[in-house]
Amino acid sequence: MDQSFSGGAPRVRAAALIGKPQHERVPSMLADLHRLLRRRGCQVLLEQGCRDLLSGVETLPMEELAARCDLAIVVGGDGTFLATATAMATHDVPLIGVNLGRVGFLVDIGAEEALAKIEEILDGRYEAEPRTQLRATLLRDGRALHEHSALNEVVVHRWVSASMIELCTTIDGVFLNTQRCDGLIVATPTGSTAYALSGGGPILHPRLAAMALVPINPYTLTNRPIVLDDASQLEITFSGGKEVNAQLSFDTVAINDVRLGDCIRIRKDPKPVTILHPMGYDFSQILRAKLGWSSG
Amino acid sequence: MDQSFSGGAPRVRAAALIGKPQHERVPSMLADLHRLLRRRGCQVLLEQGCRDLLSGVETLPMEELAARCDLAIVVGGDGTFLATATAMATHDVPLIGVNLGRVGFLVDIGAEEALAKIEEILDGRYEAEPRTQLRATLLRDGRALHEHSALNEVVVHRWVSASMIELCTTIDGVFLNTQRCDGLIVATPTGSTAYALSGGGPILHPRLAAMALVPINPYTLTNRPIVLDDASQLEITFSGGKEVNAQLSFDTVAINDVRLGDCIRIRKDPKPVTILHPMGYDFSQILRAKLGWSSG
Amino acid sequence: MDQSFSGGAPRVRAAALIGKPQHERVPSMLADLHRLLRRRGCQVLLEQGCRDLLSGVETLPMEELAARCDLAIVVGGDGTFLATATAMATHDVPLIGVNLGRVGFLVDIGAEEALAKIEEILDGRYEAEPRTQLRATLLRDGRALHEHSALNEVVVHRWVSASMIELCTTIDGVFLNTQRCDGLIVATPTGSTAYALSGGGPILHPRLAAMALVPINPYTLTNRPIVLDDASQLEITFSGGKEVNAQLSFDTVAINDVRLGDCIRIRKDPKPVTILHPMGYDFSQILRAKLGWSSG
Amino acid sequence: MDQSFSGGAPRVRAAALIGKPQHERVPSMLADLHRLLRRRGCQVLLEQGCRDLLSGVETLPMEELAARCDLAIVVGGDGTFLATATAMATHDVPLIGVNLGRVGFLVDIGAEEALAKIEEILDGRYEAEPRTQLRATLLRDGRALHEHSALNEVVVHRWVSASMIELCTTIDGVFLNTQRCDGLIVATPTGSTAYALSGGGPILHPRLAAMALVPINPYTLTNRPIVLDDASQLEITFSGGKEVNAQLSFDTVAINDVRLGDCIRIRKDPKPVTILHPMGYDFSQILRAKLGWSSG
Repeated sequence: MDQSFSGGAPRVRAAALIGKPQHERVPSMLADLHRLLRRRGCQVLLEQGCRDLLSGVETLPMEELAARCDLAIVVGGDGTFLATATAMATHDVPLIGVNLGRVGFLVDIGAEEALAKIEEILDGRYEAEPRTQLRATLLRDGRALHEHSALNEVVVHRWVSASMIELCTTIDGVFLNTQRCDGLIVATPTGSTAYALSGGGPILHPRLAAMALVPINPYTLTNRPIVLDDASQLEITFSGGKEVNAQLSFDTVAINDVRLGDCIRIRKDPKPVTILHPMGYDFSQILRAKLGWSSG
Repeated sequence: MDQSFSGGAPRVRAAALIGKPQHERVPSMLADLHRLLRRRGCQVLLEQGCRDLLSGVETLPMEELAARCDLAIVVGGDGTFLATATAMATHDVPLIGVNLGRVGFLVDIGAEEALAKIEEILDGRYEAEPRTQLRATLLRDGRALHEHSALNEVVVHRWVSASMIELCTTIDGVFLNTQRCDGLIVATPTGSTAYALSGGGPILHPRLAAMALVPINPYTLTNRPIVLDDASQLEITFSGGKEVNAQLSFDTVAINDVRLGDCIRIRKDPKPVTILHPMGYDFSQILRAKLGWSSG
Repeated sequence: MDQSFSGGAPRVRAAALIGKPQHERVPSMLADLHRLLRRRGCQVLLEQGCRDLLSGVETLPMEELAARCDLAIVVGGDGTFLATATAMATHDVPLIGVNLGRVGFLVDIGAEEALAKIEEILDGRYEAEPRTQLRATLLRDGRALHEHSALNEVVVHRWVSASMIELCTTIDGVFLNTQRCDGLIVATPTGSTAYALSGGGPILHPRLAAMALVPINPYTLTNRPIVLDDASQLEITFSGGKEVNAQLSFDTVAINDVRLGDCIRIRKDPKPVTILHPMGYDFSQILRAKLGWSSG
Repeated sequence: MDQSFSGGAPRVRAAALIGKPQHERVPSMLADLHRLLRRRGCQVLLEQGCRDLLSGVETLPMEELAARCDLAIVVGGDGTFLATATAMATHDVPLIGVNLGRVGFLVDIGAEEALAKIEEILDGRYEAEPRTQLRATLLRDGRALHEHSALNEVVVHRWVSASMIELCTTIDGVFLNTQRCDGLIVATPTGSTAYALSGGGPILHPRLAAMALVPINPYTLTNRPIVLDDASQLEITFSGGKEVNAQLSFDTVAINDVRLGDCIRIRKDPKPVTILHPMGYDFSQILRAKLGWSSG
């Protein structure tokens, strides 16, 4: 993260705007944010998927956008935030998330209060929260074929065939288990309230330095979710001897040609995603709202 | 089922032998069964996948085999039995299951006692147990594209894409729910101890006239397994408006081009699979063995 | 059920009113119902717990009330309905359930439409739905110490001690399993959406003739919920040899001196609870509302 | 822990022996251990529950034993170890666990290899593993009524009444949620494979600095297990306004008079339990054995 976000009013030279294109309320919100940022002397850059939503602003693809901005403001749902976060983290750019009516785990600022809250953040009144990412590498014959970061989860899943796969997992080189299953989710605390929760995994508090291994439909009923220190390095390979065609996904990006003999190595990403919240941010409150817990 | 199995010593003119080809103990068991059946005056027919395992016996593909025999003896695991059962049920042919060392839910007779137990069955000392099958039809534009029976389960699952599908279910024409999920398992009592159990479904006793709907990784945590009377007719369609590419499977057979607009209709198959057990068959005992319940 | 409810406008000579005493809206609803019933020439009887809520009406304890009425109208939540249902079933008296703002599984008629809907029912436009009850007997030294019916569930639970109990279950005299656990829930379809659901049990459709066995915190993870035909007779005893002090509950009634050597026998109650619904009653709709399933 | 266990051959002046009294193999194992320890010049002290199992040895109650020994050797199951661990941790005494035939999570050394392995440990070849304990305080009117440590879990559970309790939880003073449930398990990593696992909680790796909150039979299905950093301080109170009579347990010790208005404060115990393992100790191997995971 830019040093300017470690305390005091941050120095934002260039701010990136990213919006969920299909949503009807995005154009006016982008226009309002553009006006606010210009008034405060920031350059405004627009993610190219939004090029038709705001005129007179330079548009860039996500990677270049991340390289050139100091701050990213995402307008949409958690999915839009997720598609932006990893690129921003690579360049140490913090993000602000604005939702369009329904609070998200990541887009925590409501549309109606967005302008006021973002002014506060630009004035230096915010809480910067680092969220751990995973970094996963697909190795074939010892070479890295693919490498990606994931803020929510890395998933290995059976593909093409309707029969289960057999996964072998080691932790820091020590054999943990083999599991016959449909797949395995490796989730961060951020991802623990997403797909991993549907798979029966626990909720991990964002401050916990951990990752959860959640098997999908394990044949053996005692193959339960396991939570590990996020300093652990995982390696997942295929056992059982049969030909395999599996899918490997990093948040919303999927690779479909994973084979017998491949190794998926997962560890903590050295770069976290940094979210800027208004003062008084309360994860528990969002958890209660998202999971429909009555307030008591 | 042939009337001859409704009581007294059955009249078996032709018996079919089906074996798991790769297993080393199958050839000698097939030879022993062949000898026993010939001695008792039965014609012996062999499933063609076993053609190299027993010489001097007429071999046939599964469908013709089912059309010509009065009794089928399966030597292998539950998977081998499952691949045989539906064809036999079409022709009302009962099955006997022989395992090769590890008791199965379907192949309940141990190899070492198989010859004695099968003699008993041929002498008329057996319990005939009907097991319900499902019959599922894939409808497109009102026409039936595919129709299959399943002894274990019918599964609709996301395919190609890594994102969830949204399934809409009706029971006897009445809307039940829509579920965002990876898929939905519709299981018979027989299938309730197979894939559906891995998916978090309940165990259904074989005598219960029911089917279980088990969602796979449902987005909404209250989308829990539902058990229905097996006289119900289910229809599953896709909602959510987005293009879909789903997989539909009937036990081990899979179809991969299911699309938005298709309808999957599931109801009880009028033809059950009939299993002949030695006297004293006890489902609870097999359940305890398979699930590792200590005997107390 | 009184024959008069098998079709056509029922002949209701005496109607019983039962209300949840603490609720502020109950008195006015009882007064409205009293007026409606008197206008239609029915005698009105009041459950004695409501004696301060409506003046000028004969009050009776629940058992006598059930013996003297042809119809019971319950105003409150599912808990109030549950506390009334078993007594009414003993005398074949059908029930109507009116909620006070939040739809229940059993009290399905909203307060604002209650008078109109009850007129319709009295005019003969209704659907009579029988709901299965369980009948449980606590046997000690071969004698029945207690016997009760339950519309939701019968529960055996550890008591006094914080350590698990070991339960042995037979179905129709055949040994099923022993389970080390905190307890065991035996639920009807009606109860499957109540406590048994919290315990991880499946939803049983009300038309399914079944009961669910749901272990509470079983030590062995493969001790999963089991669904049986409701013609089955269960017997539950304690194994493990150690002294036991367990609690047995029938819906909301609890007995706390269950001991090693006792046997709990559970079977279907020959008398169902009959609920009268307005025309167009839809269980799925209530399920969606209660479980927060979005309508799609 | 005694400094002598931080490396090199430890200096053991007095070793305590603790055995599971009822087990037939305990007396001979205690005699063998006594001989070995005497030969190496250690004083031997015996827990008084074992006084009839070994003659000529000074016996002491657990608390005094812990105050006077440098090392404790437990012979029995995980339950015996658990009943010993907390007292030893108070005095920084490490423990060695010997099982009697079936490997435990805590008693990891088999009986047949026990003497050789303990010699190795006494020679300085061991791995010292600290296991986090919880420290829970029951507060009434601001005063601490009870305070205990727990190696496995602290549990709040409904008591006397068969109806659910409503628990309100805060983390470091911030409101988390209220839950209607039968109870709440707060488990350490060590306890995550015990009662909390039966309650649906995840497995926490022993190296993870965390605690798991596992609700028992929560009324709201989205009240799922939550994993927190073990630096968090929890406070649990009763909400819902109704009189409460709850049970609070610390591993195997239970208190039954917990009331509305009481507060249960839970935090990490500053003193861990230290287990001495032979070199090559592998938690994953024990996990596979205990949960019946096939090795591959």
